[in-house]
Amino acid sequence: MMWRWIRTVTIARERWLRRRNCLPSSGIRALSTLKAEKGYGILKSPSLVSLDIPDIWDHKNMCSEFVSTRAYSNRETARRIDGQLIAEEIRLGISAEVSRMKSSIEKVPGLAVIMVGQRRDSQAYVRNKMVACEEVGIKFVLIELPENCSEDEICNALRNFNEDSSIHGILVQLPLPQHLDDGRILDAIRLEKDVDGVHPMNIGNLAMHGKEPLCIPCTPKGCVELLLRSDVEIVGKQAVVIGRSNIVGLPTSLMLQRYHATVSIVHAFTKNPEKITREADILVAAAGVPNLVRGSWIKPGAVVIDVGTNPIEDPNCENDYRLIGDVCYEEAVKVASAVTPVPGGVGPMTVAMLLFNTLESARRALNFV
Amino acid sequence: MMWRWIRTVTIARERWLRRRNCLPSSGIRALSTLKAEKGYGILKSPSLVSLDIPDIWDHKNMCSEFVSTRAYSNRETARRIDGQLIAEEIRLGISAEVSRMKSSIEKVPGLAVIMVGQRRDSQAYVRNKMVACEEVGIKFVLIELPENCSEDEICNALRNFNEDSSIHGILVQLPLPQHLDDGRILDAIRLEKDVDGVHPMNIGNLAMHGKEPLCIPCTPKGCVELLLRSDVEIVGKQAVVIGRSNIVGLPTSLMLQRYHATVSIVHAFTKNPEKITREADILVAAAGVPNLVRGSWIKPGAVVIDVGTNPIEDPNCENDYRLIGDVCYEEAVKVASAVTPVPGGVGPMTVAMLLFNTLESARRALNFV
Repeated sequence: MMWRWIRTVTIARERWLRRRNCLPSSGIRALSTLKAEKGYGILKSPSLVSLDIPDIWDHKNMCSEFVSTRAYSNRETARRIDGQLIAEEIRLGISAEVSRMKSSIEKVPGLAVIMVGQRRDSQAYVRNKMVACEEVGIKFVLIELPENCSEDEICNALRNFNEDSSIHGILVQLPLPQHLDDGRILDAIRLEKDVDGVHPMNIGNLAMHGKEPLCIPCTPKGCVELLLRSDVEIVGKQAVVIGRSNIVGLPTSLMLQRYHATVSIVHAFTKNPEKITREADILVAAAGVPNLVRGSWIKPGAVVIDVGTNPIEDPNCENDYRLIGDVCYEEAVKVASAVTPVPGGVGPMTVAMLLFNTLESARRALNFV
Repeated sequence: MMWRWIRTVTIARERWLRRRNCLPSSGIRALSTLKAEKGYGILKSPSLVSLDIPDIWDHKNMCSEFVSTRAYSNRETARRIDGQLIAEEIRLGISAEVSRMKSSIEKVPGLAVIMVGQRRDSQAYVRNKMVACEEVGIKFVLIELPENCSEDEICNALRNFNEDSSIHGILVQLPLPQHLDDGRILDAIRLEKDVDGVHPMNIGNLAMHGKEPLCIPCTPKGCVELLLRSDVEIVGKQAVVIGRSNIVGLPTSLMLQRYHATVSIVHAFTKNPEKITREADILVAAAGVPNLVRGSWIKPGAVVIDVGTNPIEDPNCENDYRLIGDVCYEEAVKVASAVTPVPGGVGPMTVAMLLFNTLESARRALNFV
C-alpha cells in the first residue's frame, strides 16, 4: 500500500521535472532554460517559485539495510527522550501563567483553529489541541469547514478571527485539501496572531542575526526545547535536518543555526543522504517518510529527534491506525545516545509550544507582563 | 597588523562568551542558564537575539598549510569565471530596459544611497554604484552623513526617500559606525524599496517554498547568476557556504536551497570547517577573512565562488590598498574546476544585481511591463 503510494508520487515528481526539463541528471543547464519570468531576459535566473518542486522521497533507493558495525551495540544504548513528561512540565507552567492572567486582568488567551475536511489524523491532532487548551485554561474555538469549501470561505473565517480581540492565536490545520492554496490562506492570518510562526516576516526574523520573530514555529521550538532540557550541547555541533518544509524542516535548520550549530539540510534531491546524516551530532528527521532513517544513517552517539508522525494502518489500534516516525526506532536506539520516540516525543512538545505561543501572543496583545 | 586584529577580536569573542557563560566547551548546558527572557521561566530557550555572537574567525587555528595531493595538479586547471564580462552583459540589458522605460513613460528608475562616515572602501563602492547607475541611465542620489551622525538623522533621510516617488530603491552603505544600530536603520526602509533584499519579509520569502521575495540580496543573486551563466549544475549538488551574514551568507544558503542544492553552512563556530568544505561541489566563501580558504579546503573539481573583498594595505596600489578574497586564488586554481577572481568576480555582479533590483522595483512601482 505504502510502496504503491511512494511509486505514484515518485512518478509524479519525475513527470513534474520532465515537464520543466530539469531532471536532476540534466541539471541546471536545463533549469536555466526555464522562462526567466522576472528577468525579462536580462538574467538567467527564473523566479524562485518556478523552481519549487514537491519533496518526494525516493524511499526505496535511499534506504539501505542496517549493517551492524563494531561501533553498534546489540542492546539498546540510547536514552529515550520523554517528550510527554517534558511537555507536561511546560504545560503546568503555562497553566499557572494563564491563571495569573485571569486573576490579574480577568482575561485568558484565546486560540482559534480552522479545520477543513474530515481527515482522521487532522481530527485527532485538533482534538489533542482542544484538550490541551482546556487543561491550561486557554479559550479554544474551532471552525470546521467542509472538504469542498472555497478559499474565500476560509479567508472570511480568518478575517473574523483577525478582528476578534478575544483570539490571540489562529491556526489552520494542515494539510488542506488539494484545491486550496495553503500560501494564500496562511497569508491571511494577521502577523500578531500567527502562533504557527510561518508568516514570512516570522521566518525572516527567525533566520536573521539580530532579529527576533514574534513566534517560532511550534515543532522546531519544541525540538530545541527537548535538546536544551536533555542537556544536549548545540553550539559548534554538526546538525543535520532531513526535510525542508516551511513549517518544520526549514525553521528547524534556521533555529539550530541561531544556536550556532553547523547545519546541513538534506532533502529529496540530496544524493547519498546517509553519508551526510552519518556526520550529524544532532539529527532531526522531518521528511514524513516512515522508517526512512535506519541505524546506518546515524553516527554512533548522536542525538536523534524524530519529527515524523506517519499514520499507518493497524486494525489492532484505536481508529485502525497508529503513528510511526521517520526513524527506525529499534535500530536507532542501538546506535544513538538519545532518541525521541513516536508517539511521545516531539508531538506533545509541538502542542505545548502552541499553547506557549498563544500565551505569549495574548501577553503582547494585552500588555500583560 | 592583521594578526594583531584577529587576536584582539578572538579575545573579544571569548570575553563575550565567558560573560554569557557559554563558551563552546561548556556548551548548551551553559547556554540554557541564560535568562529565558521571553519564557518567564516556562521554557529553557532564551530569546534568539541573546544568542547572537559576532562571527569572529579564528583564522590561525583554522588554516592548514596547503598540501599537494595526487588529485592536485601543479598547474592552473580551473576556469576563471569572469564576473566583469558577465556583469557587463547584464548591464547592457538593463540599459536597454531603462531606455525603453524612458521612451515609453518618460520615467527612469531611481536609486538613493546613504553613506555615513569616510571609509575609503565604502567610498569606492559607492562611487562604483554611482558610475554604474549613470551608465545604464538610472537616477542616482547620494546622501553623505558625518561619522558621528545619529540614528534619527539617518532614519529621517530614509523616510524622505521612502516618500519620494522618483526613488525606487534605497541603500544604506554598510558597515555603519559602531554607535549605530544597523537593524533599526535598515528596518526603516520601506519593503518596496528594499533593493538590498534584507528586509525580514524579503528574507522570509526567499527562504520559504512557494514564496517569492520582492528583491533577492544582490550578492547572493549575483553568485547564482554566475553559476547559471557558467553552466554549473546546482540541483542535487552539495553546496557549502562559509559565513552566515544577513546580507550574504544566509541568503546565499537559502537561495541555493531553493535551487535544490544540499546546503551546509560553515561559520566561526564550526569545528574542522575544512572537512565540510572539502565535500562541496559548490563552495561559496563569504567569511570576510583574507585567504581563509586554502587549496586543502577545496574538493578537486569544485566550483569556488569568492565573495570576500578584503582591503589590505599595499603602497604600490592606487589609494594604498588593494582587495583580496577569502580564497587563496593561487592554490584554488590548482584544485577547483572554476574559480571567481577578486577583484573581477562577484563584485561587479553585486553592482549589476543592484541595478537590476532597482529596475525591477521601478517596474513594479510604475506598473511598467
